Amino acid sequence: MKKHLLSIDDVTVDDIHALFETAAEMHDVQRRDVKKLPALRGKTVINLFFEDSTRTRSSFEIAGKWLSADVINLSAKGSSTSKGESLRDTVLTVTAMGIDGLVMRHSASGAAQQVAGWLRQESSTIPVINAGDGTHEHPTQALLDAYTLTRRLGSLEGRHIAIVGDLTHSRVFRSGVKCLTKLGAEVTVVAPPTLMPSGITAWSKDAGFATSYDVDAVLPTADAVMMLRVQKERMSGGYFPTAREYTVGYGLTRSRLGLLKEGTPILHPGPMNRGLEIAPEAADAASSAVLDQVSAGVAIRMSVLYHLLAGPSAAATTGE
Amino acid sequence: MKKHLLSIDDVTVDDIHALFETAAEMHDVQRRDVKKLPALRGKTVINLFFEDSTRTRSSFEIAGKWLSADVINLSAKGSSTSKGESLRDTVLTVTAMGIDGLVMRHSASGAAQQVAGWLRQESSTIPVINAGDGTHEHPTQALLDAYTLTRRLGSLEGRHIAIVGDLTHSRVFRSGVKCLTKLGAEVTVVAPPTLMPSGITAWSKDAGFATSYDVDAVLPTADAVMMLRVQKERMSGGYFPTAREYTVGYGLTRSRLGLLKEGTPILHPGPMNRGLEIAPEAADAASSAVLDQVSAGVAIRMSVLYHLLAGPSAAATTGE
Amino acid sequence: MKKHLLSIDDVTVDDIHALFETAAEMHDVQRRDVKKLPALRGKTVINLFFEDSTRTRSSFEIAGKWLSADVINLSAKGSSTSKGESLRDTVLTVTAMGIDGLVMRHSASGAAQQVAGWLRQESSTIPVINAGDGTHEHPTQALLDAYTLTRRLGSLEGRHIAIVGDLTHSRVFRSGVKCLTKLGAEVTVVAPPTLMPSGITAWSKDAGFATSYDVDAVLPTADAVMMLRVQKERMSGGYFPTAREYTVGYGLTRSRLGLLKEGTPILHPGPMNRGLEIAPEAADAASSAVLDQVSAGVAIRMSVLYHLLAGPSAAATTGE
Repeated sequence: MKKHLLSIDDVTVDDIHALFETAAEMHDVQRRDVKKLPALRGKTVINLFFEDSTRTRSSFEIAGKWLSADVINLSAKGSSTSKGESLRDTVLTVTAMGIDGLVMRHSASGAAQQVAGWLRQESSTIPVINAGDGTHEHPTQALLDAYTLTRRLGSLEGRHIAIVGDLTHSRVFRSGVKCLTKLGAEVTVVAPPTLMPSGITAWSKDAGFATSYDVDAVLPTADAVMMLRVQKERMSGGYFPTAREYTVGYGLTRSRLGLLKEGTPILHPGPMNRGLEIAPEAADAASSAVLDQVSAGVAIRMSVLYHLLAGPSAAATTGE
Repeated sequence: MKKHLLSIDDVTVDDIHALFETAAEMHDVQRRDVKKLPALRGKTVINLFFEDSTRTRSSFEIAGKWLSADVINLSAKGSSTSKGESLRDTVLTVTAMGIDGLVMRHSASGAAQQVAGWLRQESSTIPVINAGDGTHEHPTQALLDAYTLTRRLGSLEGRHIAIVGDLTHSRVFRSGVKCLTKLGAEVTVVAPPTLMPSGITAWSKDAGFATSYDVDAVLPTADAVMMLRVQKERMSGGYFPTAREYTVGYGLTRSRLGLLKEGTPILHPGPMNRGLEIAPEAADAASSAVLDQVSAGVAIRMSVLYHLLAGPSAAATTGE
Repeated sequence: MKKHLLSIDDVTVDDIHALFETAAEMHDVQRRDVKKLPALRGKTVINLFFEDSTRTRSSFEIAGKWLSADVINLSAKGSSTSKGESLRDTVLTVTAMGIDGLVMRHSASGAAQQVAGWLRQESSTIPVINAGDGTHEHPTQALLDAYTLTRRLGSLEGRHIAIVGDLTHSRVFRSGVKCLTKLGAEVTVVAPPTLMPSGITAWSKDAGFATSYDVDAVLPTADAVMMLRVQKERMSGGYFPTAREYTVGYGLTRSRLGLLKEGTPILHPGPMNRGLEIAPEAADAASSAVLDQVSAGVAIRMSVLYHLLAGPSAAATTGE
């Protein structure tokens, strides 16, 4: 495994299987009465979040604590950043304190990559875990989604996964499509034309996934459907589609549920806009995997922290 | 004991005595050099606070940590709620992470009850502890107040307790009057007519407590007096009473101290508006129990967490 | 050692050497694989911060956790202070919870001293550590700066240290000049006339340090230079100097680096305004000690917490 987890590009198929195997063990720990492993005792993890987050930040915090690490939360709010400090100085400062791992979220695409580069210049050995950078990547989300699907469907080889939503602004989509195709899935990504990223035609050909504007055509053959969150603030001001048009055209509405094969898993990274991109009937369906994703999130993050920070496995990292 | 602590209605007199007994032991721990019990090691408690709080949030955090639990703080600020997620989804998300207890504060009356209902639908075994819901209830405050009074006065059977202040908007009053009457105290609640809740006549008759508009008539026979915090923002804008009128009519002023029997305990849940509902001479009087309440708060919350979350006692919960 | 660390006036030269000796041991712990000492296990430290802070708050948090203390963060944001509670009541409340140490930052000069006085009135045994009070003092910063310099230069006896910047508003300067002169250094403080504190002539004569308006005259004989952060918001609105004038007149620019003796350590307490008071070439110079300061900060704070809170050493405190 590489030293950092900045992008799904950093993990091989073998890495992913190793991460899933550990995650499955961690998942079992989660169900135990005493949820505490000594693996990271005496290690310190910083959660450096420049964007708001409930689930990702607390998921990493719980993951670290269950591995017995000390976890320090730093939010941009109340931080030196609001005093005009550069990102580089903020990062070098927190790493100079003697920490063992850096989990970071930032609104700028490429921020985690940049930070890893600065640390390399300083000959730092601290692994960086990208918890979301702008519209770029969110690799632990992709891993937990793929892990959740694997638990539901078995091998993803040849399975047809639909990813539906605002692809342009979605790091969940960018990491997700990479991870799922790596695992052999047939992926179709669906968006209204105005939310389809420019350049996706070339990328999809190169990477071997399909694109579509027609959700109704895609759903009947899907083995799983991942709905993306839409940013309500993008759905106004004269742009197309409006929230209402979005729901009509691309939402997983009650009537569209009928297009799915029985028991097709429904995923959403949360937080959900119920009634916008996903109807309550879909979110709460027996086949909904939304809460499984949350549970898997802790297990996957425990696994990632373990592989990148714990002694033996961390020693087996293979450079950047 | 019931599974959740949503309201004082959830605890019997026997439960209260059991909670006090454990709290007394915890109180002793608090005075030890090493304040750490292993009771909740490997358990995770979430403090989910949708309203600002110093004392309640940190009191629960300390209580959890002294019992060796991992404690995760989540505030609405910086959370998915600000992204439009529903309360139900937020709660199901944090509980899906695999936590063992949920402490929550919310501005809506009935929020904790609602959350417990949603968890029951999901067959969740996670206990919910209400740390304040709107103007409804704040049961751990009531328990710590009653515990503090018991330590000062012995049995509360037949003791006369005055609760004075803005009753309409006070969850401390609603939980407090239930708890004190349950323990056999004679309670008189005092407020200006404009801050007396509608329907209190029927409730007071039914529950066996007295009401009054005349604080000066009540204080001389009180064995303890609990002053409630007034929200300064309610005391303006042409409403009656103004802050000044409130102090003159209902504040525990220096001159009203003379109406009290010598050594009568003075309680206030904090934060205090010195000079408004309570004069500095009252807040800092030798008979003031304000800091004892704070200290008791940690002990009571340790006791509640222990009874609801620790193995043997938690096993003895008797359904919802 | 005294009970509190409110000001550099509270520590003798012997105290400083004892703190440095322990800090050196802690510094070694910081480099270990398992960074955890049991010294403060079962103790609880509160970080009570009324001002934003990244490095100081997290540095204290890490220091406490590596000594196995429970650390509770309380920020003014989201606290009772925003509900109008007095500082005294906030402090008495948190200390009544049964904590073992109070680390505090406040915007008012003298706040920590005031708090220690209130605690003395209550016969509290809780030590107070001043993490910055207004423009008054920031003793752990001074200690970590002096410690960093000692590691670079050996004994500071007779060494010439220049402190350059907005002296009027700097608690780092006030604590720093006291600490460095105590250790025998020759200190010259440099500022534009408009940012030179009134009354400094008398103080500097009394305390035996020099003042100057001319940074170019001071730098050539300096054995180390400490640049202070300027508050950008003070550098506008028709005042002199503007940010640009400040850089030209007092910034450690690339050209001024040539005035320094080779290898002269450059310090800055952070967060840095690159391009304002310090050029990137200075901040990132081989001789820059900025990241060493951050690392020393954790070691010094571990040392301070250990001396003031741990059993044997804490017992050896010599009153207030």
